[in-house]
Amino acid sequence: MKIIIVGATGTLGKKVADAFAEKHEVIRVGNTKGDVQVDIKDEASIKAMFEKIGAFDALISTSGKGPFVTVGQMTGEKFKAGLLDKLLGQVNLVLIGQHYINKGGSFTLTSGILADHPIAAGAVLSAVNGGLNSFVIAAAPELENEVRINAISPNVVEDSPAYFDSFPGEIPVTMEKVVKAFEKSVLGIVTGQVIKVY
Amino acid sequence: MKIIIVGATGTLGKKVADAFAEKHEVIRVGNTKGDVQVDIKDEASIKAMFEKIGAFDALISTSGKGPFVTVGQMTGEKFKAGLLDKLLGQVNLVLIGQHYINKGGSFTLTSGILADHPIAAGAVLSAVNGGLNSFVIAAAPELENEVRINAISPNVVEDSPAYFDSFPGEIPVTMEKVVKAFEKSVLGIVTGQVIKVY
Repeated sequence: MKIIIVGATGTLGKKVADAFAEKHEVIRVGNTKGDVQVDIKDEASIKAMFEKIGAFDALISTSGKGPFVTVGQMTGEKFKAGLLDKLLGQVNLVLIGQHYINKGGSFTLTSGILADHPIAAGAVLSAVNGGLNSFVIAAAPELENEVRINAISPNVVEDSPAYFDSFPGEIPVTMEKVVKAFEKSVLGIVTGQVIKVY
Repeated sequence: MKIIIVGATGTLGKKVADAFAEKHEVIRVGNTKGDVQVDIKDEASIKAMFEKIGAFDALISTSGKGPFVTVGQMTGEKFKAGLLDKLLGQVNLVLIGQHYINKGGSFTLTSGILADHPIAAGAVLSAVNGGLNSFVIAAAPELENEVRINAISPNVVEDSPAYFDSFPGEIPVTMEKVVKAFEKSVLGIVTGQVIKVY
């Protein structure tokens, strides 16, 4: 299976890429590193990535970011920045990628626990993650050629200790458990699912 | 209680405004009609609205729109248009309005059933509604001065028969039931809730 992993140079993406690379052809995509580069905020950059890679069987995205700001300090511009990066960026990987993906292929996006369980200064990412989850639910029945789509919604992961204090009460999940969720989406049959890892 | 209703000239907003006007001071805000006008896509316009109205006790938004497009026909630009209108527009009513609202006041936004139950060509609004729901959950604990925030998530309403065929299997809800949900948010004590009317 030919699998594109956007965000493959990040903490989570690297582990996911390494796991799939054992049995599959993996194209590692980063912002500045990896086999191919892309800026998911730029539709032309996304199109160029797909033109360069050609037809594929699965796309995994572990990419996208948003600012951590309290509601009291939040501005519309900061909120918009998160929407146009992690939310619209990942959606555009699907909207453009649907014209390149092979029959029976799959898209797997990454949202996160903040959709349901807020943390301080996390309102932008809560909105982004909630939007991604609902997009996946809605897009699945409309994708053609038996293409599937799911979202992985992880808790804080054990490999990101810098974030532990920001997630009080949460037990960091193992990278192995998160990788397994991606395997369920890519290698399994489910579609339109938000696979929670928490 | 001084209540701003943004979207008060729409199908839903008019009924909500009429109900609250029986016992409260209601400022009806529309895009081109009403007591005051606002373009929720424009932060300067929102700020001008609050400057004109001054301090208030509750803001209800029944405003915001997004395009109905199938995933196959969807472009990033169309998706972005929905995010910047119904999602960011309503969020900006809160981000800017938090600096004008009285102690103990409340914000009530409108999302919708598509966050959980998709319909054909509804993926933009699914993402918008899911984002709004998660924003409300995350923003509630951070709002200061005992200010509350909730989202009303209605099904298709009985006063919008033109939409009935787009919501197969759904039983249109009465306007009375939707109005009651807004009363629960504005006159009750709940915060950080997504009040589903379906």
